[in-house]
Amino acid sequence: MSDFQSDIKGFRVAGVHAGLKKDGVLDMAFVVSDAPCSAAGVFTTNQMKAAPVLVDIEKLTASQTGYRAVVVNTRSANACTGDQGVVNVLVMSTGVIGTHLPMEKIRHGIDLGSAGLAHDWEAAARGIMTTDTRPKFASTSVALSGGTVTISGISKGAGMIAPNMATMLGVIATDAILAPEAAQSMLASAARHTFNCIVIDGDMSTNDTVLMLANGASGVSVTSPDDLAAFNAALFAVSKSLAQAIVRDGEGVTKFITLNVQGAPDDAAAHQIANAIATSPLVKTAFFGKDANWGRIVAAAGRSGVPIVADRTQLWITAGSDLWLTDDSLHLFENGMPTAYSEATASAIFAEPDVSILLDAGMGGDGKATIWTCDLSYDYVKINGDYRS
Amino acid sequence: MSDFQSDIKGFRVAGVHAGLKKDGVLDMAFVVSDAPCSAAGVFTTNQMKAAPVLVDIEKLTASQTGYRAVVVNTRSANACTGDQGVVNVLVMSTGVIGTHLPMEKIRHGIDLGSAGLAHDWEAAARGIMTTDTRPKFASTSVALSGGTVTISGISKGAGMIAPNMATMLGVIATDAILAPEAAQSMLASAARHTFNCIVIDGDMSTNDTVLMLANGASGVSVTSPDDLAAFNAALFAVSKSLAQAIVRDGEGVTKFITLNVQGAPDDAAAHQIANAIATSPLVKTAFFGKDANWGRIVAAAGRSGVPIVADRTQLWITAGSDLWLTDDSLHLFENGMPTAYSEATASAIFAEPDVSILLDAGMGGDGKATIWTCDLSYDYVKINGDYRS
Repeated sequence: MSDFQSDIKGFRVAGVHAGLKKDGVLDMAFVVSDAPCSAAGVFTTNQMKAAPVLVDIEKLTASQTGYRAVVVNTRSANACTGDQGVVNVLVMSTGVIGTHLPMEKIRHGIDLGSAGLAHDWEAAARGIMTTDTRPKFASTSVALSGGTVTISGISKGAGMIAPNMATMLGVIATDAILAPEAAQSMLASAARHTFNCIVIDGDMSTNDTVLMLANGASGVSVTSPDDLAAFNAALFAVSKSLAQAIVRDGEGVTKFITLNVQGAPDDAAAHQIANAIATSPLVKTAFFGKDANWGRIVAAAGRSGVPIVADRTQLWITAGSDLWLTDDSLHLFENGMPTAYSEATASAIFAEPDVSILLDAGMGGDGKATIWTCDLSYDYVKINGDYRS
Repeated sequence: MSDFQSDIKGFRVAGVHAGLKKDGVLDMAFVVSDAPCSAAGVFTTNQMKAAPVLVDIEKLTASQTGYRAVVVNTRSANACTGDQGVVNVLVMSTGVIGTHLPMEKIRHGIDLGSAGLAHDWEAAARGIMTTDTRPKFASTSVALSGGTVTISGISKGAGMIAPNMATMLGVIATDAILAPEAAQSMLASAARHTFNCIVIDGDMSTNDTVLMLANGASGVSVTSPDDLAAFNAALFAVSKSLAQAIVRDGEGVTKFITLNVQGAPDDAAAHQIANAIATSPLVKTAFFGKDANWGRIVAAAGRSGVPIVADRTQLWITAGSDLWLTDDSLHLFENGMPTAYSEATASAIFAEPDVSILLDAGMGGDGKATIWTCDLSYDYVKINGDYRS
């Protein structure tokens, strides 16, 4: 999924150094289709939306067809692309709030990008990085009734340039033929279960955006229920890979946590419980300390606002990622009391880089949720508190 | 308010070393009335309530009169006081979840406390400390139509013993004659605007409790509307002092932030906005870094769930605590854009140990809220991640 190879038809990409960053570091990225595309987007729900988010929402509301490119710039969040008369292009920005784009450099970057379009997805992934430590790419192909289509994407996150937030950006391209409505509903569904299920620190950027372009170059339509289901699964896999990569490369992250909740009345309640645990500084610092502090997990669930049933709540931990209950899961908490678990076994699991948690809220419902999250380390405080010093 | 002197009538207190902690450190506290008291309590809303919380709720639900004492133990959160046949006593515990009380030591402590009851409120305040670095006490007297009454209290917070949460405890005593219903409604109101308006890290303990005893030893009844209002104001002042002391002594705290929100449709919406800002790790690390990162404050407000109006939102900062808009306030953000403020002035304000923030949500309503909070420092991560190492 992440070897940066993509034979996706009819797309060319580029990552260039426009001069927004120093020392030749790539600072703009381009994903360009040879043919007009169906486009879909999901955006931050923050009330303080950045200009490029408003621009894209306005464009996609007016029409979801005819797009040719996504252009991403770093170092400035506050794009003013309307002045340039750029049409059929969706935009993304990440960087400093309240500064205007240095338009000379942007124009230079656009010239370089236009001249350099090719198939180097790693360069494109590097071109959208801020404080990310590595480029993020995922790609998969799926056989449908009419032939094979490919889905490829890049993402960034986990970075912050003063005084902006950690912005999450994703660009997904496919050579399938997709109706705009299908593209939008499948992207929204995939994002709901992947990009919207990752927690670094609980904050939400003014710029978070995931865009998808479908250029149809494969000649394969996605219309039958079976094909839609297969495409949906492939899009979910690419989105999950891109989203998990953001958590693993989160600011100061030393541990990757899969947080599963079941036994809630509905999925929304389960998500609310999982989010309370994932955003708890006490839980996150315990993970950093490799300390089997399960009491903090249960207590965070208890304050989530969902009326979990204390004496029917259960908790298991398992070494590894993306695991629910396995033969190796350690049962820590049952009937409102700790089990007679082995402290040494618990400590050994918490010492692993990947840990899966399963909390049963004891409410007897079918609601469940998964959130991928991370610990809270000295380096998080350093990156976000000390970066000017 | 905090010189540990109290002439409150008919109460005796003690802080003793029962042997729960090492090296003679005070580890139990007693607040005892010579006469039976009206009692009131406010408790954690966490679904995972600790045993002493359940015991107190059960007792106060059965009767709010006839109480003689509050007993507090540290080092174990899971009191089993029912077994002891202690009646007319309310209990508080803070310490390790899942361990039973060492009853021999508790009995020894009760013997010591009974023998040592006096007027040393500092010892009582020290007896409830966990990782608090200093004892917390507040007292005030208020002249009513029938004479003068006194309100004194102790609090603790901001501490954590593995694997328990940072528990907030408060005990307030008054020599006024209070009907149980009035005591409960005034304590609930004071707590709502003080103890429930402080944020260290957004987590909520399984043990949080504030109890009030009114023994009537002053012979002064609080019944007329004027007297009730005057008593209410005095109780608010004591509660605010105790609550603010908890924030100032928070784990790793280097900065005390007064966070005011106005221009919301109602107080609940204003509180929701303030809470989103106060629990934002990005905002808290920026305060730690003494960085005028106002963009993080506005963005946190934007994701609070309240539909604030981006282009009517305003932000001011002021050096000092408990300040709204003053002549010295610096206007940072207006009409969705930064003002032409002086970066040097902004940095100087953020470098102060006490900073007041005022955010106008631009929604035109009368709703407002205040939350007192703090920064997120290396020491917070150290205390909560590394304490076993």
